[in-house]
Amino acid sequence: MKKKGILFILSAPSGSGKTTLCTRLVESVDSLYRSISMTTRPPRPGEKDGMDYIFIEKPEFLKRQKRKEFLEWAKVFGEHYGTPKKHILHMLKRGSDVLLSIDVQGAMKIRRLKLGAVYIFILPSSLAMLKERLINRSTDSKEAILQRLNIARKEIACSQKYDYIIVNNRLESALDNLRAIIIAERCRVKRN
Amino acid sequence: MKKKGILFILSAPSGSGKTTLCTRLVESVDSLYRSISMTTRPPRPGEKDGMDYIFIEKPEFLKRQKRKEFLEWAKVFGEHYGTPKKHILHMLKRGSDVLLSIDVQGAMKIRRLKLGAVYIFILPSSLAMLKERLINRSTDSKEAILQRLNIARKEIACSQKYDYIIVNNRLESALDNLRAIIIAERCRVKRN
Repeated sequence: MKKKGILFILSAPSGSGKTTLCTRLVESVDSLYRSISMTTRPPRPGEKDGMDYIFIEKPEFLKRQKRKEFLEWAKVFGEHYGTPKKHILHMLKRGSDVLLSIDVQGAMKIRRLKLGAVYIFILPSSLAMLKERLINRSTDSKEAILQRLNIARKEIACSQKYDYIIVNNRLESALDNLRAIIIAERCRVKRN
Repeated sequence: MKKKGILFILSAPSGSGKTTLCTRLVESVDSLYRSISMTTRPPRPGEKDGMDYIFIEKPEFLKRQKRKEFLEWAKVFGEHYGTPKKHILHMLKRGSDVLLSIDVQGAMKIRRLKLGAVYIFILPSSLAMLKERLINRSTDSKEAILQRLNIARKEIACSQKYDYIIVNNRLESALDNLRAIIIAERCRVKRN
Protein backbone atom coordinates (compact mmCIF):
# COMPACT_ATOMS: atom_id res chain seq x y z
CA MET A 1 0.00 0.00 0.00
CA LYS A 2 1.53 3.26 -1.10
CA LYS A 3 1.62 6.26 1.21
CA LYS A 4 -0.15 9.35 -0.10
CA GLY A 5 1.98 12.35 -0.95
CA ILE A 6 2.01 15.53 1.14
CA LEU A 7 0.86 18.87 -0.24
CA PHE A 8 3.05 21.74 0.99
CA ILE A 9 1.46 25.18 0.69
CA LEU A 10 3.89 28.08 0.76
CA SER A 11 2.81 31.70 1.14
CA ALA A 12 4.96 34.76 1.31
CA PRO A 13 4.34 38.47 0.77
CA SER A 14 5.64 39.68 -2.59
CA GLY A 15 9.28 40.62 -2.70
CA SER A 16 10.33 37.96 -0.25
CA GLY A 17 12.22 35.88 -2.80
CA LYS A 18 9.55 33.19 -2.93
CA THR A 19 10.33 31.93 -6.43
CA THR A 20 14.04 31.58 -5.69
CA LEU A 21 13.25 29.73 -2.46
CA CYS A 22 10.88 27.31 -4.23
CA THR A 23 13.32 26.59 -7.04
CA ARG A 24 16.21 26.00 -4.64
CA LEU A 25 14.06 23.88 -2.35
CA VAL A 26 12.89 21.54 -5.11
CA GLU A 27 16.51 21.17 -6.25
CA SER A 28 17.73 20.22 -2.80
CA VAL A 29 15.00 17.84 -1.59
CA ASP A 30 14.25 14.43 -3.14
CA SER A 31 10.86 13.68 -4.68
CA LEU A 32 9.32 17.10 -4.22
CA TYR A 33 7.52 18.55 -7.22
CA ARG A 34 6.42 22.13 -7.81
CA SER A 35 2.93 22.88 -8.99
CA ILE A 36 2.89 25.93 -11.25
CA SER A 37 -0.17 28.21 -11.17
CA MET A 38 -1.90 29.53 -14.27
CA THR A 39 -2.58 33.19 -14.90
CA THR A 40 -4.02 35.45 -17.58
CA ARG A 41 -1.74 38.34 -16.68
CA PRO A 42 1.22 39.01 -18.96
CA PRO A 43 4.67 37.91 -17.78
CA ARG A 44 6.72 40.55 -15.97
CA PRO A 45 10.29 41.13 -17.13
CA GLY A 46 12.36 38.10 -16.20
CA GLU A 47 9.40 35.80 -15.59
CA LYS A 48 9.44 32.54 -17.51
CA ASP A 49 6.43 30.60 -18.78
CA GLY A 50 6.16 27.30 -16.89
CA MET A 51 8.59 28.51 -14.25
CA ASP A 52 6.94 31.44 -12.45
CA TYR A 53 3.49 30.85 -13.93
CA ILE A 54 1.85 29.12 -16.85
CA PHE A 55 0.68 32.12 -18.86
CA ILE A 56 -2.58 31.54 -20.75
CA GLU A 57 -5.19 33.64 -22.55
CA LYS A 58 -8.37 34.67 -20.78
CA PRO A 59 -10.80 32.58 -22.92
CA GLU A 60 -8.65 29.50 -22.27
CA PHE A 61 -8.69 30.24 -18.53
CA LEU A 62 -12.47 30.67 -18.46
CA LYS A 63 -12.93 27.38 -20.36
CA ARG A 64 -10.80 25.56 -17.79
CA GLN A 65 -12.58 27.31 -14.96
CA LYS A 66 -15.95 26.17 -16.36
CA ARG A 67 -14.63 22.60 -16.58
CA LYS A 68 -13.69 22.85 -12.87
CA GLU A 69 -10.04 22.26 -13.64
CA PHE A 70 -8.84 24.48 -10.78
CA LEU A 71 -8.37 23.55 -7.15
CA GLU A 72 -9.00 27.24 -6.47
CA TRP A 73 -8.98 30.38 -8.57
CA ALA A 74 -9.13 34.13 -7.97
CA LYS A 75 -9.46 37.40 -9.86
CA VAL A 76 -6.95 40.03 -8.79
CA PHE A 77 -6.84 43.48 -10.46
CA GLY A 78 -8.86 42.09 -13.40
CA GLU A 79 -6.52 39.15 -14.03
CA HIS A 80 -7.24 35.50 -13.30
CA TYR A 81 -5.06 33.15 -11.29
CA GLY A 82 -5.74 29.45 -10.82
CA THR A 83 -4.20 26.29 -9.37
CA PRO A 84 -4.49 23.33 -11.79
CA LYS A 85 -6.18 20.43 -9.97
CA LYS A 86 -5.60 17.23 -11.96
CA HIS A 87 -1.81 17.16 -11.88
CA ILE A 88 -1.62 17.89 -8.12
CA LEU A 89 -4.14 15.21 -7.17
CA HIS A 90 -2.41 12.69 -9.45
CA MET A 91 0.99 13.39 -7.89
CA LEU A 92 -0.35 13.11 -4.34
CA LYS A 93 -2.16 9.86 -5.15
CA ARG A 94 0.99 8.26 -6.52
CA GLY A 95 2.84 9.22 -3.32
CA SER A 96 4.79 12.27 -4.50
CA ASP A 97 5.00 15.41 -2.42
CA VAL A 98 3.89 18.63 -4.08
CA LEU A 99 5.00 22.20 -3.36
CA LEU A 100 2.49 24.92 -4.16
CA SER A 101 3.39 28.56 -3.84
CA ILE A 102 0.22 30.58 -3.43
CA ASP A 103 -1.09 33.77 -1.78
CA VAL A 104 -2.82 33.81 1.60
CA GLN A 105 -6.36 33.94 0.21
CA GLY A 106 -5.66 31.02 -2.13
CA ALA A 107 -4.12 29.07 0.73
CA MET A 108 -7.21 29.60 2.87
CA LYS A 109 -9.45 28.39 0.02
CA ILE A 110 -7.36 25.24 -0.29
CA ARG A 111 -7.54 24.69 3.45
CA ARG A 112 -11.33 24.30 3.12
CA LEU A 113 -10.76 21.35 0.75
CA LYS A 114 -9.27 19.37 3.67
CA LEU A 115 -6.42 17.86 1.70
CA GLY A 116 -4.31 17.49 4.85
CA ALA A 117 -1.84 20.00 3.45
CA VAL A 118 1.04 21.53 5.41
CA TYR A 119 0.95 25.34 5.49
CA ILE A 120 4.19 27.32 5.58
CA PHE A 121 4.45 31.10 5.81
CA ILE A 122 7.59 33.02 4.90
CA LEU A 123 7.86 36.19 6.94
CA PRO A 124 10.10 38.67 5.15
CA SER A 125 12.96 39.92 7.25
CA SER A 126 11.84 43.56 7.26
CA LEU A 127 8.49 42.64 8.82
CA ALA A 128 10.18 40.22 11.15
CA MET A 129 12.58 42.90 12.24
CA LEU A 130 9.64 45.23 12.67
CA LYS A 131 7.82 42.64 14.74
CA GLU A 132 10.87 42.24 16.92
CA ARG A 133 11.17 46.01 17.29
CA LEU A 134 7.54 46.29 18.33
CA ILE A 135 7.87 43.47 20.80
CA ASN A 136 10.90 45.13 22.33
CA ARG A 137 9.04 48.47 22.50
CA SER A 138 11.42 50.48 20.39
CA THR A 139 11.53 54.27 20.59
CA ASP A 140 11.40 54.86 16.78
CA SER A 141 9.12 57.59 15.36
CA LYS A 142 5.55 56.67 16.21
CA GLU A 143 4.06 57.44 12.77
CA ALA A 144 6.60 55.34 10.92
CA ILE A 145 6.07 52.44 13.25
CA LEU A 146 2.28 52.68 13.11
CA GLN A 147 2.20 52.64 9.32
CA ARG A 148 4.51 49.67 9.02
CA LEU A 149 2.73 48.00 11.88
CA ASN A 150 -0.52 48.14 9.91
CA ILE A 151 0.98 46.14 7.06
CA ALA A 152 2.84 43.87 9.40
CA ARG A 153 -0.23 43.18 11.45
CA LYS A 154 -2.18 41.87 8.44
CA GLU A 155 0.66 39.60 7.42
CA ILE A 156 1.35 38.35 10.89
CA ALA A 157 -2.33 37.79 11.61
CA CYS A 158 -2.57 35.58 8.54
CA SER A 159 0.66 33.79 9.32
CA GLN A 160 -0.85 32.52 12.57
CA LYS A 161 -3.22 30.37 10.50
CA TYR A 162 -0.27 28.50 9.04
CA ASP A 163 1.44 25.45 10.52
CA TYR A 164 4.92 26.91 10.25
CA ILE A 165 6.44 30.37 10.09
CA ILE A 166 9.90 30.89 8.67
CA VAL A 167 11.59 34.21 9.20
CA ASN A 168 13.50 34.95 6.02
CA ASN A 169 16.53 36.77 7.38
CA ARG A 170 18.93 34.95 5.12
CA LEU A 171 18.09 32.88 2.05
CA GLU A 172 20.30 29.96 3.10
CA SER A 173 18.84 29.78 6.57
CA ALA A 174 15.25 30.06 5.27
CA LEU A 175 16.07 27.27 2.85
CA ASP A 176 17.44 25.10 5.67
CA ASN A 177 14.25 25.62 7.64
CA LEU A 178 12.08 24.81 4.63
CA ARG A 179 14.06 21.65 3.93
CA ALA A 180 13.76 20.64 7.58
CA ILE A 181 9.98 21.06 7.49
CA ILE A 182 9.66 18.85 4.38
CA ILE A 183 11.86 16.11 5.91
CA ALA A 184 10.19 16.33 9.34
CA GLU A 185 6.68 16.16 7.89
CA ARG A 186 7.67 12.99 6.05
CA CYS A 187 8.49 11.43 9.46
CA ARG A 188 5.20 12.58 10.97
CA VAL A 189 2.81 9.89 12.19
CA LYS A 190 -0.40 11.91 11.79
CA ARG A 191 -1.09 15.17 10.06
CA ASN A 192 -3.67 17.54 11.53
CA MET B 1 8.50 37.99 26.29
CA LYS B 2 10.65 34.93 25.92
CA LYS B 3 9.38 31.88 24.04
CA LYS B 4 9.22 28.70 26.11
CA GLY B 5 11.60 25.91 25.16
CA ILE B 6 10.47 22.68 23.52
CA LEU B 7 10.83 19.31 25.21
CA PHE B 8 11.82 16.59 22.74
CA ILE B 9 11.16 13.05 23.93
CA LEU B 10 13.12 10.35 22.15
CA SER B 11 12.35 6.65 22.50
CA ALA B 12 14.06 3.76 20.83
CA PRO B 13 14.27 0.04 21.55
CA SER B 14 17.60 -0.94 23.07
CA GLY B 15 20.41 -1.61 20.66
CA SER B 16 19.29 1.04 18.20
CA GLY B 17 22.24 3.34 18.85
CA LYS B 18 20.15 5.79 20.84
CA THR B 19 23.01 7.24 22.92
CA THR B 20 25.18 7.86 19.86
CA LEU B 21 22.26 9.53 18.10
CA CYS B 22 21.54 11.81 21.08
CA THR B 23 25.18 12.81 21.49
CA ARG B 24 25.59 13.56 17.78
CA LEU B 25 22.29 15.44 17.64
CA VAL B 26 23.13 17.74 20.53
CA GLU B 27 26.52 18.43 18.92
CA SER B 28 24.98 19.38 15.58
CA VAL B 29 21.98 21.48 16.63
CA ASP B 30 22.22 24.87 18.37
CA SER B 31 20.73 25.41 21.82
CA LEU B 32 19.57 21.87 22.43
CA TYR B 33 20.40 20.38 25.81
CA ARG B 34 20.28 16.74 26.88
CA SER B 35 18.60 15.76 30.09
CA ILE B 36 20.36 12.80 31.70
CA SER B 37 18.26 10.30 33.65
CA MET B 38 19.22 8.94 37.06
CA THR B 39 19.47 5.25 37.89
CA THR B 40 20.44 2.99 40.77
CA ARG B 41 21.74 0.24 38.49
CA PRO B 42 25.52 -0.08 38.13
CA PRO B 43 27.12 1.27 34.96
CA ARG B 44 27.61 -1.25 32.16
CA PRO B 45 31.07 -1.50 30.55
CA GLY B 46 31.69 1.65 28.56
CA GLU B 47 28.92 3.68 30.20
CA LYS B 48 29.97 7.00 31.68
CA ASP B 49 28.47 8.72 34.69
CA GLY B 50 26.72 11.91 33.59
CA MET B 51 26.79 10.82 29.97
CA ASP B 52 24.61 7.72 29.68
CA TYR B 53 23.05 8.07 33.14
CA ILE B 54 23.68 9.75 36.43
CA PHE B 55 24.47 6.74 38.61
CA ILE B 56 23.33 7.13 42.22
CA GLU B 57 22.83 4.87 45.27
CA LYS B 58 19.39 3.52 46.08
CA PRO B 59 18.91 5.47 49.37
CA GLU B 60 19.76 8.69 47.52
CA PHE B 61 17.24 7.83 44.78
CA LEU B 62 14.48 7.08 47.30
CA LYS B 63 15.18 10.36 49.10
CA ARG B 64 14.83 12.28 45.82
CA GLN B 65 11.74 10.31 44.91
CA LYS B 66 10.15 11.21 48.24
CA ARG B 67 10.98 14.88 47.64
CA LYS B 68 9.14 14.58 44.26
CA GLU B 69 12.27 15.50 42.36
CA PHE B 70 11.38 13.30 39.37
CA LEU B 71 9.18 14.12 36.41
CA GLU B 72 8.55 10.37 36.23
CA TRP B 73 10.26 7.32 37.66
CA ALA B 74 10.06 3.55 37.23
CA LYS B 75 11.39 0.33 38.76
CA VAL B 76 12.71 -2.13 36.17
CA PHE B 77 14.20 -5.51 37.23
CA GLY B 78 14.62 -4.18 40.80
CA GLU B 79 16.52 -1.03 39.76
CA HIS B 80 15.18 2.52 39.82
CA TYR B 81 15.19 4.97 36.94
CA GLY B 82 14.07 8.59 37.15
CA THR B 83 13.94 11.81 35.14
CA PRO B 84 15.13 14.81 37.18
CA LYS B 85 12.45 17.49 37.08
CA LYS B 86 13.97 20.78 38.25
CA HIS B 87 16.67 21.14 35.61
CA ILE B 88 14.29 20.32 32.70
CA LEU B 89 11.60 22.76 33.80
CA HIS B 90 14.20 25.46 34.38
CA MET B 91 15.69 25.00 30.91
CA LEU B 92 12.27 25.07 29.23
CA LYS B 93 11.27 28.18 31.15
CA ARG B 94 14.36 30.08 30.07
CA GLY B 95 13.59 29.17 26.42
CA SER B 96 16.06 26.34 25.88
CA ASP B 97 15.04 23.16 24.10
CA VAL B 98 15.63 19.92 25.98
CA LEU B 99 16.23 16.43 24.60
CA LEU B 100 15.17 13.56 26.81
CA SER B 101 15.89 9.97 25.83
CA ILE B 102 13.48 7.69 27.65
CA ASP B 103 11.66 4.35 27.22
CA VAL B 104 8.10 4.07 25.92
CA GLN B 105 6.48 3.71 29.35
CA GLY B 106 8.34 6.74 30.68
CA ALA B 107 7.36 8.73 27.60
CA MET B 108 3.70 7.87 28.11
CA LYS B 109 3.91 8.99 31.77
CA ILE B 110 5.40 12.30 30.66
CA ARG B 111 2.67 12.70 28.05
CA ARG B 112 0.11 12.80 30.89
CA LEU B 113 1.89 15.86 32.33
CA LYS B 114 0.83 17.86 29.22
CA LEU B 115 4.12 19.66 28.77
CA GLY B 116 3.47 20.09 25.03
CA ALA B 117 6.44 17.85 24.31
CA VAL B 118 7.34 16.49 20.87
CA TYR B 119 7.53 12.67 20.77
CA ILE B 120 9.98 10.97 18.44
CA PHE B 121 10.33 7.21 18.00
CA ILE B 122 13.39 5.58 16.46
CA LEU B 123 12.46 2.38 14.71
CA PRO B 124 15.56 0.17 14.45
CA SER B 125 16.33 -0.94 10.94
CA SER B 126 15.88 -4.66 11.63
CA LEU B 127 12.31 -4.10 12.79
CA ALA B 128 11.71 -1.65 10.02
CA MET B 129 12.93 -4.18 7.51
CA LEU B 130 10.71 -6.77 9.16
CA LYS B 131 7.76 -4.41 8.96
CA GLU B 132 8.45 -3.86 5.30
CA ARG B 133 8.73 -7.60 4.75
CA LEU B 134 5.42 -8.20 6.49
CA ILE B 135 3.73 -5.49 4.50
CA ASN B 136 5.00 -7.00 1.29
CA ARG B 137 3.80 -10.46 2.41
CA SER B 138 7.13 -12.21 2.29
CA THR B 139 7.42 -15.97 1.98
CA ASP B 140 9.99 -16.39 4.85
CA SER B 141 9.56 -19.23 7.39
CA LYS B 142 6.33 -18.64 9.24
CA GLU B 143 7.67 -19.36 12.75
CA ALA B 144 10.58 -16.98 12.39
CA ILE B 145 8.35 -14.24 11.11
CA LEU B 146 5.71 -14.77 13.80
CA GLN B 147 8.23 -14.56 16.63
CA ARG B 148 9.86 -11.41 15.31
CA LEU B 149 6.46 -10.04 14.46
CA ASN B 150 5.45 -10.31 18.09
CA ILE B 151 8.28 -8.05 19.19
CA ALA B 152 7.86 -5.76 16.23
CA ARG B 153 4.15 -5.42 16.81
CA LYS B 154 4.63 -4.10 20.35
CA GLU B 155 7.22 -1.58 19.20
CA ILE B 156 5.26 -0.46 16.20
CA ALA B 157 2.02 -0.21 18.19
CA CYS B 158 3.73 2.12 20.63
CA SER B 159 5.40 4.12 17.90
CA GLN B 160 1.98 5.16 16.58
CA LYS B 161 1.49 7.17 19.77
CA TYR B 162 4.48 9.32 18.88
CA ASP B 163 4.47 12.45 16.72
CA TYR B 164 7.32 11.28 14.51
CA ILE B 165 8.82 7.94 13.50
CA ILE B 166 12.35 7.74 12.18
CA VAL B 167 13.49 4.54 10.57
CA ASN B 168 17.11 4.07 11.57
CA ASN B 169 18.53 2.44 8.45
CA ARG B 170 21.67 4.53 8.51
CA LEU B 171 22.96 6.63 11.40
CA GLU B 172 23.64 9.68 9.21
CA SER B 173 20.20 9.63 7.67
CA ALA B 174 18.48 9.11 11.04
CA LEU B 175 20.51 12.04 12.36
CA ASP B 176 19.42 14.21 9.40
CA ASN B 177 15.79 13.38 10.11
CA LEU B 178 16.19 14.13 13.82
CA ARG B 179 17.85 17.45 13.10
CA ALA B 180 15.07 18.32 10.64
CA ILE B 181 12.41 17.59 13.28
CA ILE B 182 14.10 19.88 15.83
CA ILE B 183 14.46 22.72 13.30
CA ALA B 184 10.93 22.27 11.92
CA GLU B 185 9.34 22.21 15.37
CA ARG B 186 11.07 25.49 16.14
CA CYS B 187 9.22 27.01 13.15
CA ARG B 188 5.88 25.54 14.22
CA VAL B 189 3.10 28.00 15.06
CA LYS B 190 1.21 25.74 17.47
CA ARG B 191 2.13 22.50 19.13
CA ASN B 192 -0.54 19.86 19.77
